[in-house]
Amino acid sequence: MIEFPAHPITPIGIIHSCYPQKFGIPRQPGLVKSSTGRLALLPPCDREEMVRGLDAFSHLWILFLFHGAVAEGWRPMVRPPWLGGQKRVGVFASRSPHRPNFMGLSVVRLMGIRREKKGLFLELAELDLLDQTPVFDIKPYVPYSDAVAGAHGGTIPPPGMVPREVLFTDEAEESCSIYEQRTGRQLRALITETLEQDPRPASQRRRAREYGMALWEVNVRWQAEGEGFLVVRIEGVEKGE
Amino acid sequence: MIEFPAHPITPIGIIHSCYPQKFGIPRQPGLVKSSTGRLALLPPCDREEMVRGLDAFSHLWILFLFHGAVAEGWRPMVRPPWLGGQKRVGVFASRSPHRPNFMGLSVVRLMGIRREKKGLFLELAELDLLDQTPVFDIKPYVPYSDAVAGAHGGTIPPPGMVPREVLFTDEAEESCSIYEQRTGRQLRALITETLEQDPRPASQRRRAREYGMALWEVNVRWQAEGEGFLVVRIEGVEKGE
Repeated sequence: MIEFPAHPITPIGIIHSCYPQKFGIPRQPGLVKSSTGRLALLPPCDREEMVRGLDAFSHLWILFLFHGAVAEGWRPMVRPPWLGGQKRVGVFASRSPHRPNFMGLSVVRLMGIRREKKGLFLELAELDLLDQTPVFDIKPYVPYSDAVAGAHGGTIPPPGMVPREVLFTDEAEESCSIYEQRTGRQLRALITETLEQDPRPASQRRRAREYGMALWEVNVRWQAEGEGFLVVRIEGVEKGE
Repeated sequence: MIEFPAHPITPIGIIHSCYPQKFGIPRQPGLVKSSTGRLALLPPCDREEMVRGLDAFSHLWILFLFHGAVAEGWRPMVRPPWLGGQKRVGVFASRSPHRPNFMGLSVVRLMGIRREKKGLFLELAELDLLDQTPVFDIKPYVPYSDAVAGAHGGTIPPPGMVPREVLFTDEAEESCSIYEQRTGRQLRALITETLEQDPRPASQRRRAREYGMALWEVNVRWQAEGEGFLVVRIEGVEKGE
């Protein structure tokens, strides 16, 4: 048998995203249109010429490290959420983060390329990546070959799920307004779209409790209310002038 | 700035494909339906349970090393073939093998999973990978999220190119028959589909010469003939009983 040495790879950039924690990250990209972030390119890959022409593409592939999963290791079989967390399949039949080499693949929308004093940034949306994710490569999404006609996806069902209704208390509503004015980020839409997908683990859906969910630098407190959710308050938004 | 250590990754398997050399490999996957091969899974990833459930998917993502490009290094800008080899774009706006970390991403058709004495194999088709390619990860192709509705691909044109006509001499025809009977591989279709895409570099299309192209363990000799190609003979096919 041929012996392979380990191949060392070095991040070309790092993600800054609205998701500082795993809880709340959509299970597939594209579900939450308001989830935004940016890729900060690192030297020697922070040269504008290296991304020249990229803005002609609407979407990108991001190859990244599931850095939150490395310390936990991987197992040969997993229980993917699209099988209700019950049935086990091989790790290579899943998109689980807990996999050999811990490599992730995600498609994101490219909103723009920005040169700032502190570096070169790709502005991204429809993101499902944890803040601080190390990125190993980016590639243009080429519909002609990447959108495979006639591919069928086994047991992964399309989300026929009806989006949950999401309501806000007056207090939470006000915090969103203040935050949005200050940062320009669409916090209310981000919370709504994230909760519509029901981020609770299947095992917890019958328990009545209040949840905390970190988005950007705030903590969103919410609870189930009938078939939907109520956003109770938002911690970390300064009310003063 | 945050310092990142290089992350070591280890191949989970190795590709055996019909392409022992770069010349002839289609510029995008899916173009050559008869290009086949297999992924030999390496320990500790050669356990059947790790791919259980994978056969429910028609296609796979393969994350691999462009091992033929590592020694040549990478440059910030490249001249991709879809721009006629003339215009330069940033390496991250291309799918060039000569890129930081030398990582490739390709979608292939999964034909089956086979356990043999010498290992566990995934049988693949519509392959554009070099023989002996080290593979770092495989993931199921999930049409719902991977086939992005409305994505547009910048300057990469869909191949409006008319396929070239491919003719065979009697001698070449006979060699194909013998080879196909011996191996069960569809050599004639593989040659035809590969030449239909015109594998010649743009710079050589005006020169009249005979080409050699390695497919599996044979060498296919061919030349331009009018607007099409003529397969002259096939070297490496034993004629004996």
